[in-house]
Amino acid sequence: MKLIEPRTLSGFMELMPEEQIVFNKYKKIIEETYEKYSFYPLDTPVIEYANVLLAKAGGETEKQIYRFKKGDNDLALRFDLTVPLAKYVAARQNELIFPFKRYQIGKVYRGERAQKGRFREFYQCDIDVIGDEDLPLIYDAQIPAIISEIFEKMNIGDFKIRINNRKILTGFFESLNLQNEITDILRIIDKIDKIGIENIKKELLELNIENVDKIIEFINIKENVIEKLENLNIVNETFNLGIKEMKEVVYYLDLMKVKNYYIDLTIARGLDYYTGTIYETFLTDYPEIGSISSGGRYENLAGYYTDKKLPGVGMSIGLTRLFYKLNELGLIKENKTNIADYLIVPMDNNYEYIFKVYNKLRDNGKKAEICLLDKSFKSKMKYANRTKIPYVIIIGENEINTNTVVIKNMQDGTQTVEKIF
Amino acid sequence: MKLIEPRTLSGFMELMPEEQIVFNKYKKIIEETYEKYSFYPLDTPVIEYANVLLAKAGGETEKQIYRFKKGDNDLALRFDLTVPLAKYVAARQNELIFPFKRYQIGKVYRGERAQKGRFREFYQCDIDVIGDEDLPLIYDAQIPAIISEIFEKMNIGDFKIRINNRKILTGFFESLNLQNEITDILRIIDKIDKIGIENIKKELLELNIENVDKIIEFINIKENVIEKLENLNIVNETFNLGIKEMKEVVYYLDLMKVKNYYIDLTIARGLDYYTGTIYETFLTDYPEIGSISSGGRYENLAGYYTDKKLPGVGMSIGLTRLFYKLNELGLIKENKTNIADYLIVPMDNNYEYIFKVYNKLRDNGKKAEICLLDKSFKSKMKYANRTKIPYVIIIGENEINTNTVVIKNMQDGTQTVEKIF
Repeated sequence: MKLIEPRTLSGFMELMPEEQIVFNKYKKIIEETYEKYSFYPLDTPVIEYANVLLAKAGGETEKQIYRFKKGDNDLALRFDLTVPLAKYVAARQNELIFPFKRYQIGKVYRGERAQKGRFREFYQCDIDVIGDEDLPLIYDAQIPAIISEIFEKMNIGDFKIRINNRKILTGFFESLNLQNEITDILRIIDKIDKIGIENIKKELLELNIENVDKIIEFINIKENVIEKLENLNIVNETFNLGIKEMKEVVYYLDLMKVKNYYIDLTIARGLDYYTGTIYETFLTDYPEIGSISSGGRYENLAGYYTDKKLPGVGMSIGLTRLFYKLNELGLIKENKTNIADYLIVPMDNNYEYIFKVYNKLRDNGKKAEICLLDKSFKSKMKYANRTKIPYVIIIGENEINTNTVVIKNMQDGTQTVEKIF
Repeated sequence: MKLIEPRTLSGFMELMPEEQIVFNKYKKIIEETYEKYSFYPLDTPVIEYANVLLAKAGGETEKQIYRFKKGDNDLALRFDLTVPLAKYVAARQNELIFPFKRYQIGKVYRGERAQKGRFREFYQCDIDVIGDEDLPLIYDAQIPAIISEIFEKMNIGDFKIRINNRKILTGFFESLNLQNEITDILRIIDKIDKIGIENIKKELLELNIENVDKIIEFINIKENVIEKLENLNIVNETFNLGIKEMKEVVYYLDLMKVKNYYIDLTIARGLDYYTGTIYETFLTDYPEIGSISSGGRYENLAGYYTDKKLPGVGMSIGLTRLFYKLNELGLIKENKTNIADYLIVPMDNNYEYIFKVYNKLRDNGKKAEICLLDKSFKSKMKYANRTKIPYVIIIGENEINTNTVVIKNMQDGTQTVEKIF
């Protein structure tokens, strides 16, 4: 018989078992923290009607989507968890309790050009609060507070959540009469980490706009940001509303004792979706990884499906890419990947005694495994070594006769005899 | 703008938030129990190369599969977790530690005919042990021991794991010279729960085979099964090997203190895949649900991908269907779906005090939420009621001045004033 090569598609992460344990630990931290803050879990289908998924999409998204026919149905795989949330909330708007706090951790699909570190199947870990007609601003603080707690627990090094407000950006550029150039200007400003302030200035000048100096002055504001923005004395309603919102969010963040954030006027996010607070998160020592969690406030979640106004605020962690990058950079500190603490290695087939020891260990809350291989003692110890099980319990005739076990510490090689019954 | 109807595909389960909480609790029990017994987690892609996934498939499976092109690639969605496991183990046979104990909980896809209670996207929760060339028989006991523990924890009523051995069946029919009719005979016997022994007899007679009485006698063996099988004094190697295996598995099951099983000679499972022990699991009071967890021992996991012999034993829980059926029959006892234990309802905007109370509750390990709605007190209490949060903490001017809170028990309506600082 001709064998088929057991290939996995490129752009699809498939981990070794020990790596998967670490990945799952991170996933669990995210899940448990989302739940701790009383967010409901959701689990929507991976496949949806293409016209439902693509209600809003276009351009890049539409090209990347996995779309296919099954019978008469035009189907597609979800490319994010926001559109399914919009569908879900629109369909159940009369049954859900608002504000609707939900999280969803699931795989999404984008058929991007294959490239190292780019994934076509990846986990998004989303958290959002959706209001009915309105939503208090305090949630704009609660979401980054939760994200901050998660990254602290993950122990992946220093990080900062950068916060901005789209109204401040919009209002500022309106006040300079640059409302038509906003998109181009923000696209340039967005590159600041990569190309630096001098090149930003150069590119802005190439746009042939006035007031480039004022823009540079604006994006150079780094400390006492709110005060300095107020001192600009700009007469623009949107701008001043943005400052008011930012002030309130900062007040709540401090009440929630959030430390890992700062205001960054250079972040802009999705240009037509977010309408208020916006977030990006960077590892302090590895900014090149890019934002590890982003999001913001939007005015209307589900306008394509319902007339009801559903404002919301949310963030998302792209766990697959984050894990890949941390792994690549050797930044994963979590190394407890042993599947058991004790490995019982029988040198005798007295299963009654072996299981008495096994059940005793389990009753004491220890994670124990019996090495059931019909192999040499050496092979069994090799198994213990490879699985990184820290203690081996040896049971031979002598132990059975004396109601004892030999416990071997695999790290330092010491052995002790213990009476366990 | 014309609105798009936020439809979900039929055959795709999408739960209300409270239902999702219960579903996730079941999923968590499965996951934690699999891990408790030192099985590694796996998470393989949902999409694979079609030729890899379909290496073994054919007939029904091939018709049901979601298959499509993306660029030049012929792709398909996984229809089970066994084929991806085979691919995974074959591809990494030199890196994995054998016996390789893995579990995987994930969604699989089958484009079946739409029908109430039939799902096209559903969770499988698989657990398998794979050996390198051979695998001790004790694992044939450990797998059902784990499954039994899971259903006990899920608290879904009495259940029994029915155990049989393909070698006993094969050997028995060989001894009657019916080896060519095995498939037809087993297909008839498989219907015993639905049509009863008399109809089984009738259908067997229609096959025009001899020894129908012996077959009936065989499948009527219910107690002291092993002893009675031995007393048949059948001279057939396969038959006697089957009995020996069964005896050993039962011995281990008793050592592991497994109670919820019995030997059932009428279960047969997949006809060309399983080669030894086989399992089906039924709820005692609701056999009409069908098997809620099945599996068995197979001689070779990955013969389509590698020449290495990889025997294994495993079982799978079809959680989506099980949850659907339990829900439909009103058998879900788990009803703690409240997302928080305390809801703080502020009657005053003194956020310093509100957050002092909130942080205090959280420091004490309580799950608390603040009702941040700009709405009437009545609306806030309605929110508490709908989310089933059991205690409401009311904070008004008086409480702030006296360093107290009012705690309202939502079940009996009683209120107490407590000093909490």
